Amino acid sequence: MDLSSFLTSLGTSFVIFLVLMFLFAWLSGKPGNTVVYYPNRILKGLEPWEGGSKTRNPFAWIKEALSSTEQEVITLSGVDTAVYFVFLSTVLGILVLSSLILLPILLPVAATDSGDIKTNSTTSNVTFSDLDKLSMGNVKGKSPRLWAFLLGVYWVSFVTYFLLWKAYRHVSDLRAKALMSPDVKPQQFAVLVRDIPTAPEGPNRKEQVDSYFRTIYPDTFYKSMVVTDNKVVNKIWKELEGFKKKLARAEAVYAASKTTGNPEGTKPTNKTGFLGLCGAKVDSIQYYTEKVNELIPKLESEQKLTLREKQLNAALVFFTNRTTAASAAQTLHAQMVDTWTVMDAPEPRQVLWPNLKIKFFQRQLRQYVVYIIVALTIVFYMIPIAAISAFTTLDNLVKLLPFIKPVVKQSALKTVLEAYLPQLALIIFLALLPKLLYALSKAEGIPSHSHAIRAASGKYFYFIVFNVFLGITLGATLFSTFKTIEKHPNEIVTLLATSLPGNASYFITFVALKFFIGYGLELSRIVPLIIFHLKRKYICKTEGELKAAWFPSDLGYGTRIPGDMLIVTIVLCYSVIAPIIIPFGVLYFGIGWLVLRNQALKVYCPAYESYGRFWPHMHVRILAALLLYQVTMLGFFGVKKFYYAPVAIPLPILSLLFGYICSNKFYRFFQDTALEVASHELKEIPNMEQIYRSYIPPSLSSEKVLDDDQFEDAKSNVSRTASFA
Amino acid sequence: MDLSSFLTSLGTSFVIFLVLMFLFAWLSGKPGNTVVYYPNRILKGLEPWEGGSKTRNPFAWIKEALSSTEQEVITLSGVDTAVYFVFLSTVLGILVLSSLILLPILLPVAATDSGDIKTNSTTSNVTFSDLDKLSMGNVKGKSPRLWAFLLGVYWVSFVTYFLLWKAYRHVSDLRAKALMSPDVKPQQFAVLVRDIPTAPEGPNRKEQVDSYFRTIYPDTFYKSMVVTDNKVVNKIWKELEGFKKKLARAEAVYAASKTTGNPEGTKPTNKTGFLGLCGAKVDSIQYYTEKVNELIPKLESEQKLTLREKQLNAALVFFTNRTTAASAAQTLHAQMVDTWTVMDAPEPRQVLWPNLKIKFFQRQLRQYVVYIIVALTIVFYMIPIAAISAFTTLDNLVKLLPFIKPVVKQSALKTVLEAYLPQLALIIFLALLPKLLYALSKAEGIPSHSHAIRAASGKYFYFIVFNVFLGITLGATLFSTFKTIEKHPNEIVTLLATSLPGNASYFITFVALKFFIGYGLELSRIVPLIIFHLKRKYICKTEGELKAAWFPSDLGYGTRIPGDMLIVTIVLCYSVIAPIIIPFGVLYFGIGWLVLRNQALKVYCPAYESYGRFWPHMHVRILAALLLYQVTMLGFFGVKKFYYAPVAIPLPILSLLFGYICSNKFYRFFQDTALEVASHELKEIPNMEQIYRSYIPPSLSSEKVLDDDQFEDAKSNVSRTASFA
Repeated sequence: MDLSSFLTSLGTSFVIFLVLMFLFAWLSGKPGNTVVYYPNRILKGLEPWEGGSKTRNPFAWIKEALSSTEQEVITLSGVDTAVYFVFLSTVLGILVLSSLILLPILLPVAATDSGDIKTNSTTSNVTFSDLDKLSMGNVKGKSPRLWAFLLGVYWVSFVTYFLLWKAYRHVSDLRAKALMSPDVKPQQFAVLVRDIPTAPEGPNRKEQVDSYFRTIYPDTFYKSMVVTDNKVVNKIWKELEGFKKKLARAEAVYAASKTTGNPEGTKPTNKTGFLGLCGAKVDSIQYYTEKVNELIPKLESEQKLTLREKQLNAALVFFTNRTTAASAAQTLHAQMVDTWTVMDAPEPRQVLWPNLKIKFFQRQLRQYVVYIIVALTIVFYMIPIAAISAFTTLDNLVKLLPFIKPVVKQSALKTVLEAYLPQLALIIFLALLPKLLYALSKAEGIPSHSHAIRAASGKYFYFIVFNVFLGITLGATLFSTFKTIEKHPNEIVTLLATSLPGNASYFITFVALKFFIGYGLELSRIVPLIIFHLKRKYICKTEGELKAAWFPSDLGYGTRIPGDMLIVTIVLCYSVIAPIIIPFGVLYFGIGWLVLRNQALKVYCPAYESYGRFWPHMHVRILAALLLYQVTMLGFFGVKKFYYAPVAIPLPILSLLFGYICSNKFYRFFQDTALEVASHELKEIPNMEQIYRSYIPPSLSSEKVLDDDQFEDAKSNVSRTASFA
Repeated sequence: MDLSSFLTSLGTSFVIFLVLMFLFAWLSGKPGNTVVYYPNRILKGLEPWEGGSKTRNPFAWIKEALSSTEQEVITLSGVDTAVYFVFLSTVLGILVLSSLILLPILLPVAATDSGDIKTNSTTSNVTFSDLDKLSMGNVKGKSPRLWAFLLGVYWVSFVTYFLLWKAYRHVSDLRAKALMSPDVKPQQFAVLVRDIPTAPEGPNRKEQVDSYFRTIYPDTFYKSMVVTDNKVVNKIWKELEGFKKKLARAEAVYAASKTTGNPEGTKPTNKTGFLGLCGAKVDSIQYYTEKVNELIPKLESEQKLTLREKQLNAALVFFTNRTTAASAAQTLHAQMVDTWTVMDAPEPRQVLWPNLKIKFFQRQLRQYVVYIIVALTIVFYMIPIAAISAFTTLDNLVKLLPFIKPVVKQSALKTVLEAYLPQLALIIFLALLPKLLYALSKAEGIPSHSHAIRAASGKYFYFIVFNVFLGITLGATLFSTFKTIEKHPNEIVTLLATSLPGNASYFITFVALKFFIGYGLELSRIVPLIIFHLKRKYICKTEGELKAAWFPSDLGYGTRIPGDMLIVTIVLCYSVIAPIIIPFGVLYFGIGWLVLRNQALKVYCPAYESYGRFWPHMHVRILAALLLYQVTMLGFFGVKKFYYAPVAIPLPILSLLFGYICSNKFYRFFQDTALEVASHELKEIPNMEQIYRSYIPPSLSSEKVLDDDQFEDAKSNVSRTASFA
């Protein structure tokens, strides 16, 4: 890639970003769009923007984002979001501090050398442009100037250690503060019990669980809820809810038809056959009312049946105080470790019910099977990606598809295509994977949504680093040096080191594309806006349907964090080789921080709260990126035939040591709740019944309203213990 | 080694064993020796032997050992001893079951083949005798007869899995039964707290600890005891105790002198200078009385000072029930994992006080440093041992020391020397190590004596297997094939496999020596008997001194178990190659079981009780021996050029899987106390004050008797919480 196509790429991206930003400023001011641009504030019962005036500065959001405090983020979007901002600002800090030393020193040192590009270009087979004069590739082998680069690696490493340590401590405090908060949170009073052994006497697990926990916790045990197999009842309940919605919709249509000059109105009709396309035509309101009335008793009898007969080998157990629950989740209860496994209860909204029944050894087996599948996926995805990055250059495309030649001949178009084609192919390709990884993680038997997302995100990170970073870097070189690899497969570090400089401009464009276009689209919310307006106009008839149309998603950590991690890995790995990449990294995380701060405060609504459990994952992965960087640099100094390259050997060891100490000092608190934290006093005496009910799945809870005693009775004949409530 | 020296060695050992056994039968019947042969029963307040008649069958002990139940062992010698017998009988079971199939099948299969000894002996350089005709070395390469040996490996492996699984379950039940027993045991009500952070206000840690735990456990916290730096007070206390003993001794001597015709008696005197050899001559009674009176106030003031000023960063915390203590020991208390570390309290008698103050990361650092030192020791001990096993053959000795030639020329002597010399050298060499390993394990910062012994024992096992087994096996071959090794260092498995058959007779002699001589000495207790009688006659003057002279030690697991493990490893590894070794293994564990059952019931007195925590170590090490065996056999089948050798590949994988499943299912209960076990009801309401006092070190407890309030007062000004007692 030459300089002109590089600059064109940057320029176009920037223009698109500006357009999107102005679009945002214009569209977000319109009152009809507030539900798209401020849904989180609206859901929290706040005014879309403070002051309430309709005409406001279109760039006020920047000021608001900058002046917002961490406490505001926690209040409006939860601890997880605040932790995500700690991540963003930590990486930003690492890059800014690195650039302060690296840019003024390394750029002149590289630019003023005469370079040994010719010897290098034979191996990496990439045309060097003016941009490459600013990189380490321009420094002669064995040159004492390499000392500056070696010390640069040390500087970046120590900055990273320092800021990561500070961040870990800070996140740990955030988590502690959230967990010790005096608000009553149901999950702090409950534990999840799995692998309940089959009792000899029969199916009533409820009594078994109750007597087991009452013996161990005579004073603090409140009640237990045995997990049931809800497959059938869920199906009926969904059907019922569907008919209820359709009924409401039909009534809304009927009411709407009344006003327009027709005081009787037209009763809506529908066909009863497949997808409403065939079958007898019936009056919708009457038909759906019938259906609803039919299903309600069916649901009720199925609910009773489920509660009585379909009890599984898992339960939720409730305690009257937080300390006992926190302590129970960490302790061994049964002599055989694979029975009565007790763990933290997930939040009610994020329990993955179907996973709870999976047994101890089956969980471990599933985990290993999933790991193997993921490892295979990582390896075999590499082949098409390497092929794509090699074939989607224009020259190759023209060779393969000669009919596109006339289109490509136009110079301007050619430059744009050349700049974007490979990256676009890559981005589209990557969008297919996360759902697969989430499904695989769920199949491991993980009990909570957030945990499954963390697991999927971790897999995605390794995937993305191995395939995108290593794949692109090595893929370009593989075509020229395929035979070398075959002969010396253990020289992969050297190969990586030689390939890196040639790909610097590729990755700079990649980063720029990601932040200009990615964050531009993020901020402007063009796609959700269009979808919302289309839905509102043509589909939504009731209030509920309208709310569902604008209801915001969450920040989507599962794919967002691995994406950010890829940028961290790229920028770290190039930080010393081509320091010019650092400003782009700073822009990525700077603009990202700003745009996402706005989105977190105003748009997204978290789907769950894990109290910062994501942090250790991020921490380990930043360290993994640093380690990759250090090892690559060791190889690169070797390629440059620098005699003092071994001076960098302590760095990877130091990184491992740092990781070890951090995980020993901080990690366990992210797995278990420390008792000194859980034992803080509550604001009010907890309403245990309410806590208990918050865990009843919706498909079973309808009965509760109808016939509470029945529910109580069906679940157990054991009288309640005296609770503190 | 030829057949005649092999038989001589066996014969001599057997004769010595018979002599020792008759000696035991004769000596143990003498009333004056009961304290040597029945100290455990005497200490438990029982008659030396049942029935009480003086003349009894000299072989009654065999009947008594055989008819004793596991419950008797637990009552008289504790759970640890019972677990040790589970180990012995499990290994015995493995060997007996293996021999049932292996002996009748493999011996004929091997003996009837013509053998390819000549091709083999060029590599292993050992003279083959008639004995070797019974071994796998006698089977031709590529012969289909090797199938029998391969299936033999499978049989041994599955027998081992089956019996180990049963044993693990049984030991887990033994542990559970002991832990849920209704007797009050102080360690079940206490936890050990380490890494207490420095409080900002000052030195009074007691209040800090009290308030911390009272917040978390408002209902069940009883009291805390801050660990103090007892160095000085211990020194004074020891000095005082020494003088008290000397005073008692002087008084006894004086009393004894009165009776012998001299009604006034002679007052004993001593010199005050160095070791009582120089200095002024003084009246002993007067002198020691003065010294005691001098030291008592000094001790008291030092005790007060210690309790007030020398509080360390560790404490024992007491709870009013077992469940809370068990739960507290497993849970995370502080947000920072390296502060307020809570763990199980050791028994009062086995606390390693000086280790308690060592900090979190320092403990881990110490552990790694110790591991490195041990690894170096293991590697560098190998060199002298290999040298010894090569040089202590008679031929080599004669070459080196020509003057011993006339001695060696006598045929009978030569045979005996040839049989014993290498083994004796080895046994003496090994006796030097355990103390070093125990000291190293203590230096890791382990808080309890039993844990340190387990750690030392684990190290000793690896040492003994690597050095004795691999060292001897490879050492003999190393001299002939040193150059092969240098060129192909990765062929160590093949080398091991080729070396094994040549050493079979060496190890058979080794096993026989160990059980005939070892258990003969063990049973007859010749050495302790002689020492006791010498002490009684010439040294002991008071009752206390006499009791100290016969007071029994414990079973000495630290060295006993690795020794047994070595035999397990040897017998397993040779079980298929030279099945004739199995009967010797059976004899070792059979005689061992019988002799030690006698010793456990009548002689040894356990120094601590860890409720079977030794078992997982033993289990893992038996599995490690099995794994070594399977890998060696794989190599051996390869050496025999057996085409179907890969059929044995699943075995090592199966062993790893079996180990993984066992450790997942059972192991955690050996680390933590399961709450369902701890929550069993007690026989009586625990006397908390007594539990608390049992942990006061003797050097501090003397004051308690003198001035209880002072003690209470010095430790804390916080009033006691209402206890359940």
